[in-house]
Amino acid sequence: MNTIGHIFRLTTFGESHGTAIGGVIDGCPSQLKLDFDFIDSELQRRKTAQSSTASQRKETDQIEWLSGLLDGVTLGTPIAFMVRNEGCKPDDYEVLKDVYRPSHADFTYEQKYGFRDWRGGGRASARTTLPIVVAGAIAKQILAEKSIVIKAETVFMGDAEQARKEGDTVGGIVECRITGVPVGLGEPMFGKFSAELAHAMFSLPAVKGFEVGDGFALAKMKGSEANDTFINIKDAGLGDARREVCPESRSLESRVKISTLTNHSGGIQGGISNGNDIVFRVAFKPIPSVARPQQTVNRAGEPCEIAIEGRHDVCALPRALVLVEALAAMVTLDEMILSHTGRIL
Amino acid sequence: MNTIGHIFRLTTFGESHGTAIGGVIDGCPSQLKLDFDFIDSELQRRKTAQSSTASQRKETDQIEWLSGLLDGVTLGTPIAFMVRNEGCKPDDYEVLKDVYRPSHADFTYEQKYGFRDWRGGGRASARTTLPIVVAGAIAKQILAEKSIVIKAETVFMGDAEQARKEGDTVGGIVECRITGVPVGLGEPMFGKFSAELAHAMFSLPAVKGFEVGDGFALAKMKGSEANDTFINIKDAGLGDARREVCPESRSLESRVKISTLTNHSGGIQGGISNGNDIVFRVAFKPIPSVARPQQTVNRAGEPCEIAIEGRHDVCALPRALVLVEALAAMVTLDEMILSHTGRIL
Amino acid sequence: MNTIGHIFRLTTFGESHGTAIGGVIDGCPSQLKLDFDFIDSELQRRKTAQSSTASQRKETDQIEWLSGLLDGVTLGTPIAFMVRNEGCKPDDYEVLKDVYRPSHADFTYEQKYGFRDWRGGGRASARTTLPIVVAGAIAKQILAEKSIVIKAETVFMGDAEQARKEGDTVGGIVECRITGVPVGLGEPMFGKFSAELAHAMFSLPAVKGFEVGDGFALAKMKGSEANDTFINIKDAGLGDARREVCPESRSLESRVKISTLTNHSGGIQGGISNGNDIVFRVAFKPIPSVARPQQTVNRAGEPCEIAIEGRHDVCALPRALVLVEALAAMVTLDEMILSHTGRIL
Amino acid sequence: MNTIGHIFRLTTFGESHGTAIGGVIDGCPSQLKLDFDFIDSELQRRKTAQSSTASQRKETDQIEWLSGLLDGVTLGTPIAFMVRNEGCKPDDYEVLKDVYRPSHADFTYEQKYGFRDWRGGGRASARTTLPIVVAGAIAKQILAEKSIVIKAETVFMGDAEQARKEGDTVGGIVECRITGVPVGLGEPMFGKFSAELAHAMFSLPAVKGFEVGDGFALAKMKGSEANDTFINIKDAGLGDARREVCPESRSLESRVKISTLTNHSGGIQGGISNGNDIVFRVAFKPIPSVARPQQTVNRAGEPCEIAIEGRHDVCALPRALVLVEALAAMVTLDEMILSHTGRIL
Repeated sequence: MNTIGHIFRLTTFGESHGTAIGGVIDGCPSQLKLDFDFIDSELQRRKTAQSSTASQRKETDQIEWLSGLLDGVTLGTPIAFMVRNEGCKPDDYEVLKDVYRPSHADFTYEQKYGFRDWRGGGRASARTTLPIVVAGAIAKQILAEKSIVIKAETVFMGDAEQARKEGDTVGGIVECRITGVPVGLGEPMFGKFSAELAHAMFSLPAVKGFEVGDGFALAKMKGSEANDTFINIKDAGLGDARREVCPESRSLESRVKISTLTNHSGGIQGGISNGNDIVFRVAFKPIPSVARPQQTVNRAGEPCEIAIEGRHDVCALPRALVLVEALAAMVTLDEMILSHTGRIL
Repeated sequence: MNTIGHIFRLTTFGESHGTAIGGVIDGCPSQLKLDFDFIDSELQRRKTAQSSTASQRKETDQIEWLSGLLDGVTLGTPIAFMVRNEGCKPDDYEVLKDVYRPSHADFTYEQKYGFRDWRGGGRASARTTLPIVVAGAIAKQILAEKSIVIKAETVFMGDAEQARKEGDTVGGIVECRITGVPVGLGEPMFGKFSAELAHAMFSLPAVKGFEVGDGFALAKMKGSEANDTFINIKDAGLGDARREVCPESRSLESRVKISTLTNHSGGIQGGISNGNDIVFRVAFKPIPSVARPQQTVNRAGEPCEIAIEGRHDVCALPRALVLVEALAAMVTLDEMILSHTGRIL
Repeated sequence: MNTIGHIFRLTTFGESHGTAIGGVIDGCPSQLKLDFDFIDSELQRRKTAQSSTASQRKETDQIEWLSGLLDGVTLGTPIAFMVRNEGCKPDDYEVLKDVYRPSHADFTYEQKYGFRDWRGGGRASARTTLPIVVAGAIAKQILAEKSIVIKAETVFMGDAEQARKEGDTVGGIVECRITGVPVGLGEPMFGKFSAELAHAMFSLPAVKGFEVGDGFALAKMKGSEANDTFINIKDAGLGDARREVCPESRSLESRVKISTLTNHSGGIQGGISNGNDIVFRVAFKPIPSVARPQQTVNRAGEPCEIAIEGRHDVCALPRALVLVEALAAMVTLDEMILSHTGRIL
Repeated sequence: MNTIGHIFRLTTFGESHGTAIGGVIDGCPSQLKLDFDFIDSELQRRKTAQSSTASQRKETDQIEWLSGLLDGVTLGTPIAFMVRNEGCKPDDYEVLKDVYRPSHADFTYEQKYGFRDWRGGGRASARTTLPIVVAGAIAKQILAEKSIVIKAETVFMGDAEQARKEGDTVGGIVECRITGVPVGLGEPMFGKFSAELAHAMFSLPAVKGFEVGDGFALAKMKGSEANDTFINIKDAGLGDARREVCPESRSLESRVKISTLTNHSGGIQGGISNGNDIVFRVAFKPIPSVARPQQTVNRAGEPCEIAIEGRHDVCALPRALVLVEALAAMVTLDEMILSHTGRIL
């Protein structure tokens, strides 16, 4: 349950204040020269202390590559990597040892496992998403060679600076767009592209909503409004650069260039990519670590008050962009690879 | 990719106008006496022609049980079942053979597989969800013995009767509530309860959005508003009947009865159930089969007009309730079973 | 656990005397015109009453195709099929209801599931292997287009006619050869080609041993005897028709035609095919249903005597050949498909 | 494909001369206090330079624990660990860079991946089995609390000292016995206990044969000889300490103490454990690295001669014992955990 992906698979490990955070990527194609600078720049996007919304923990996030590479080129064997946890101050958390922070995972983890790593959120810490950025960067590099580009942006964020002053936190909504996706990715029934994306996004901490295309707004439209009219790109005078037919498609007559005039569907129909941009949105709740005092209970069930001091973000969003992109890249690459299994070469 | 679940697994098969629709349930516990009347009543809820919003196709939906049972009791071996497709009128669809219906899966399936079953939507037809109802009914029966109850209701639906007159269709939003879930179900990281539910719901046709608890609305709250305060149930004077600690929990001190005052989180924190009701909403787009004429293209890429006649629902919702419940039941049961793997007996 | 395969996956269902035996094949490539005559001829090889070693149960084994096909061509969707159980005489087995037949699965099934289908062996009956033949025939058809041929033969069988007279049974050893396999199939570590074959063969009833190449005999050789010398096929004057480099291989310099002079390794080195014939052997124990009286106990643990009358084979082997071939074909096809996932197209 | 197990899962990584060898264990129950001394003693059994048959590479094999533990107690989160590769002398292997060693994986890896890590065998090195020992030791510790004991011994080994003198190597056969296994472990059809063991054992380098119980010898017996007579333990005067009924068994009447007089089946019938000792044998071919000169070809396909100098074992067996035990422990524990999923608590 710490693994995601069918063929391109990431297994992650690590707790916030344990020895190290890391991952193992299995199923990465061989003979790929990794772009370490790009990976570092992606990690930089996730890092703390980069903006006014993020916390102050010092993280050098220096990746150590443990396996799977020869002179920086992938061998086809598992790529293991890790980042040591530094700047840990578990004492900061000593006070939280016996108290359940509201809307954190303290209570549920302790119930599930019988005890918990109380130091900095343990496995539930946002820090454990770091390996996702690494695997996502590698997936992006491969997709970029196919002219597939993934870009997330903030479409809503609460007033962070005001919240910080009030010892409070805010949430927000991220929109992500995948351009250049070939037609035919995704599997019907329980392997829909949309379902795989939904599953991946809900793996991020604080995610509480996900929608594809016009999403919830579609529920309020009529069919005649919501439907995407098919058009012939040539007729429409649109470029066809990105509308490559999926490699597994073998019907000659379908290689006409067909697209849709609108994109209410968000690029996915019947669970399968239709060649248009894949567009989705992810809702993040506010970070639950608020500085102002809150009522809660301790492990004995006694009421108590808590004020969460320390280094905490005001909003997950600035950092979450690269995470949303990373998971989208991993899912897309996995679907690309899977699409090769449908044909007999 | 036609299988869902980790231990309690359903594999489905069938196209709308093929010989039969059915499924194979693997991992169902043995010695369960199936409640066939309940299964039939659930199927009845999914059936067409039951309301003013549904289409007129005659479906007897008589299940034939093929394996896995002895005198109606589960053997622990795979339970296979099927329903023969009757009342098929493929000729109705002959006209659609070479045309891509807007926002249907015609185009994407054809691109993916090289050709498609054009009769009634083939594998992409809503009819293929029938096996989900069967597996869901069995899961519900097992959960009911644990006092876990699942109930979906429509919280928004467009004006169906007006749409029908206009040859149009409408969408809607379903809310589902799971009560009685023990604390500690779900796995952190890539097996979060919310992620499993999201994946399952996006497996349904026409689903375009999913949110847990206050969902997208949480993105606009402050942390101090969104957080759920922990309380001691005894102090709060609340009943504790449904707040059973997960079987795998072994820490005595945690068996105090703790819950939350509010439920913005929708019963899931850190991906794991906290004992409160699990609440989520699913957005369905309008059914794309509208009777009024639409522009589209045919397989040759030539523009043409289409008016989809025949037996079609105006809205997916009345039927979708039982589907949402069924998948929620399957996911919940699967998590229940998985929770037993965390301990050493 | 009733599913085999990674991409080309078979899920089977059915008990010996239940309603039907069948399977669902997921991941079969689309646009394949099934050769029904070939499938029938393969089923004929498995059928009872075909030889002096086999039992007398009348099985028409008429396949009903339930889904996944349009005019006999695969749609890329799940292919479900079944054979109804006919000629069932459960009364024949009434006497066995409370007795554990020696070396049968009666006792273990009953312990595992709490009760068992006592009619004809239930799920443990050799009859449940029928769906393997169907899936194997489809796999063979696909492989044949790639000039990959799979052939099993009996290399040892006890004296069946003598055993029949004595109310006894015999075992035997099957050798199987896969010719035309490209270099590079199989995955290192836990996905070795040999490990996948071993797993598949041990899924057959009565299998108790498996070896690849010279197998157990290798344990008694010296390294200098056991090693297979690499040769250049051109130098050796050997044909190269079947020595196609695996599609995922991208190193030009390796496309020289290299093979081995001997084949002690049975075509697999480091878990990966080396282009030589894959050769393995499977040991079948004697069928445990012997007519002569045996001591055993009943469900109450009381000693009793049993003489298993009825329609039983004297030896599993004549029928087992097609099963060994079928599973070998399924594994090989699965590895072929998986090998496409190692590259980025 | 670098992962083994269903619930208790090990993912391994590392090449012989890369930065590190390691693994991630997912699904290990929480609240287990690891016995580090035992883990070290198991690693010691695998280590080189311990006997006259093993090579001279200096390996300190100091494990670094990266995650999943708090004060040495398992958290229920992934347990990652690694051992740095020291004493690497890649120059020793420079000469092998362009030559395919007979019966090694050099050729097949290079064909599969396009290039290979030529330093010391890379991923195909026996050194990559180290993580198996760690996971196996943890599994053994858990099983020991259930009185399940696993013991492997050499039942045949070639004349190692003579072979060393001749610059040659030898193979051998390992027999492994699992005592105390409850009745009812293993799944019918494609999840047989025997099939899982076979798959696991064939994951070890140099394994070419596997048999359960009397194995290949059963093929030459008659049914009346091969069958294991059921007995009532009380009648037979045998102890019943280890014959615990599987936890999932719910039929009271089956709790009589039944066993078998002989154990030709090796403790597995119909794929499911019958409570007797599980006994199996594994055949190892001779190590292919022989010092005496051999004919082979280089990457260009040109014939050449090779004499493999350096630090190599004469026989895999002394080290293989702990590996066979480790995998057997992992499979058995996984089956134990899976058996809990068959019931509804």
